[in-house]
Amino acid sequence: MRLVILGGGQLARMLALSSHPLGIDVLVLTEEADCPAAQVAEVVVTDFKDFNKILSSLKSTDYVTFEFENIPLNLVKEIASYNKVYPSENSLYITQHRVREKKFAERLGIPVPKYIHVENASSLETALSELSFQAILKTCSSGYDGKGQWRISDKSDLLKYSSQIPDDIVAESFVRFDREVSIIIVKSFDGEIRSYDICQNVHESGTLRKTVNIPKNSSQEEDKILNLGVDYASRIANALDYVGVLAVEFFQIGSELFFNEYAPRVHNSGHWTIEGTVTSQFENHVRACMCLPLGDTTSYGFSAMRNLLGETNDKTEILKTPGAHYHWYGKSEVRDRRKVGHVTINSDSKIQTEKLYQNLFGDS
Amino acid sequence: MRLVILGGGQLARMLALSSHPLGIDVLVLTEEADCPAAQVAEVVVTDFKDFNKILSSLKSTDYVTFEFENIPLNLVKEIASYNKVYPSENSLYITQHRVREKKFAERLGIPVPKYIHVENASSLETALSELSFQAILKTCSSGYDGKGQWRISDKSDLLKYSSQIPDDIVAESFVRFDREVSIIIVKSFDGEIRSYDICQNVHESGTLRKTVNIPKNSSQEEDKILNLGVDYASRIANALDYVGVLAVEFFQIGSELFFNEYAPRVHNSGHWTIEGTVTSQFENHVRACMCLPLGDTTSYGFSAMRNLLGETNDKTEILKTPGAHYHWYGKSEVRDRRKVGHVTINSDSKIQTEKLYQNLFGDS
Repeated sequence: MRLVILGGGQLARMLALSSHPLGIDVLVLTEEADCPAAQVAEVVVTDFKDFNKILSSLKSTDYVTFEFENIPLNLVKEIASYNKVYPSENSLYITQHRVREKKFAERLGIPVPKYIHVENASSLETALSELSFQAILKTCSSGYDGKGQWRISDKSDLLKYSSQIPDDIVAESFVRFDREVSIIIVKSFDGEIRSYDICQNVHESGTLRKTVNIPKNSSQEEDKILNLGVDYASRIANALDYVGVLAVEFFQIGSELFFNEYAPRVHNSGHWTIEGTVTSQFENHVRACMCLPLGDTTSYGFSAMRNLLGETNDKTEILKTPGAHYHWYGKSEVRDRRKVGHVTINSDSKIQTEKLYQNLFGDS
Repeated sequence: MRLVILGGGQLARMLALSSHPLGIDVLVLTEEADCPAAQVAEVVVTDFKDFNKILSSLKSTDYVTFEFENIPLNLVKEIASYNKVYPSENSLYITQHRVREKKFAERLGIPVPKYIHVENASSLETALSELSFQAILKTCSSGYDGKGQWRISDKSDLLKYSSQIPDDIVAESFVRFDREVSIIIVKSFDGEIRSYDICQNVHESGTLRKTVNIPKNSSQEEDKILNLGVDYASRIANALDYVGVLAVEFFQIGSELFFNEYAPRVHNSGHWTIEGTVTSQFENHVRACMCLPLGDTTSYGFSAMRNLLGETNDKTEILKTPGAHYHWYGKSEVRDRRKVGHVTINSDSKIQTEKLYQNLFGDS
């Protein structure tokens, strides 16, 4: 049994590390020889436009998955005619365009914050005035981690950025949320769905900085939110004929969840599951993609995950901390604000986890 | 930072899988290209007699460890003059000869069951008659997993095996033990010692079949045994100037522990620590060998580990079991009774763990 992963970043690396114990061979297709996955799995370096090279690297018995969304859809289509590819091609198609994705969520009855599709930059001012010049502009495709985004707080911002802003963008109204959460579920090839705890997220300049889990049965209110989120995520998974881990990001206002976006893959906000749960998102994604039974998603306690963004923290200090787990991605270069690793702190008390986190990282 | 592991079996594989997240590069030196570690780390294939090739593969900044005892002592001596090698060369020297090892334990005040060193096969009968022909004969060096061992239950067994039995063996009296346990400790470069729970072991034809942990604070009697075992193991570690994970196997009779042997490395009876504790024996061995702080050895609950001995169990059945974790070693061949993988079952109840184990494997 072999799993082929399209993309060789940290998600592929952690998927590979979860595959080996399961006795699953891994082949990583990557555009960068010096990628994080190369240290832990066999790689083939290829341009993702070189369909022939990619197809000739595959065996008919391979299962195929991907670790990022900006992969050519036609490539996945082509592979899917020979191999099992999970998640579904359609889940990739929908999410490759922000407006398509929002409309899809709306059709499933999931609340989506106000947005305007700006197909032509010339109509931007009209759109923004409808949103009172309080909006985030995002390219409809190929953006990630705050890239391809512009925050508009008043009319002058429009002038400032207008030369940079391309066609086909979406203007999203500011959402004054109480918190940001993601719901991570995993769906097996035979339709079973399991969910992890609520992931409560803090972003910094458009990039995830911190995630804590809210253990099931913490309170009735939290369980209601989890159930609502799992209901929404399950609608998406079922509509997409989904197999694998699916992460859905929401804005929470009161007891309501508003759809932000989904990721058809393992997700940064689920990294705490490696040590925080019985079966991590990585192992469960591998299990699902290989048509194996799902593992238990129960958490052990209170986890807090910190992304290391272009930082080389003192490893000794981190490893001294009880319950702290260090994850380095082995990237070729530690660049400004690049995700180069993460740290997860676990304990059986929310206060203790938070204290250990603050001792190490200063902020809460 | 790079860790060089001498030997490429499943222990090296699991050490490598623990090293990657810590941001530690791994180089495995192995005599077999197609070894379990080759799928998860860079390897150099070399004869262990080829000191020049080995030394030229090392960088001066490398930390070096080993995953088996039958490694040429002179090689380790040679490497130690250029690199940090943990555990100490002396810990290897002592354990490479069973009688030397037993005498060492005795000198430290650790009870050792009766044994007779039979340097010349011609004196075997005299030795055995002193043990009433109730003994296990073991080669003093190079034996493992029941290999190089002969069980003598009466005089006729001597005749049966005499042609196979070499010089320099040890005749060990049968020990009518209540149970077999191992104590696994880890010692840091600055002398800190941490211990895991008692590992309670079941052997089958000289090979470990099953280990369960006895969580700390289970009972006063168990805590006494753990403390006694940790005291003995610590004497060994301190006498050897030890750094890394050390496993000591004991026979328990009543509330006494009798020394069987020690392993200067991670140990099969500690495989349950991967999912059963905060920091596995593999990660802690890597941390210790790299002069990093030790991790928490606390267990989460009740684990039962089953060795897969030349067996290809139904993976789907295993993965269906809640709390079951599958570990395949990727060996080149599944041979009769060879260790090809293991399964660990975890739950927060001893009865539940045992029930799940029996459902899967039939015996207890």
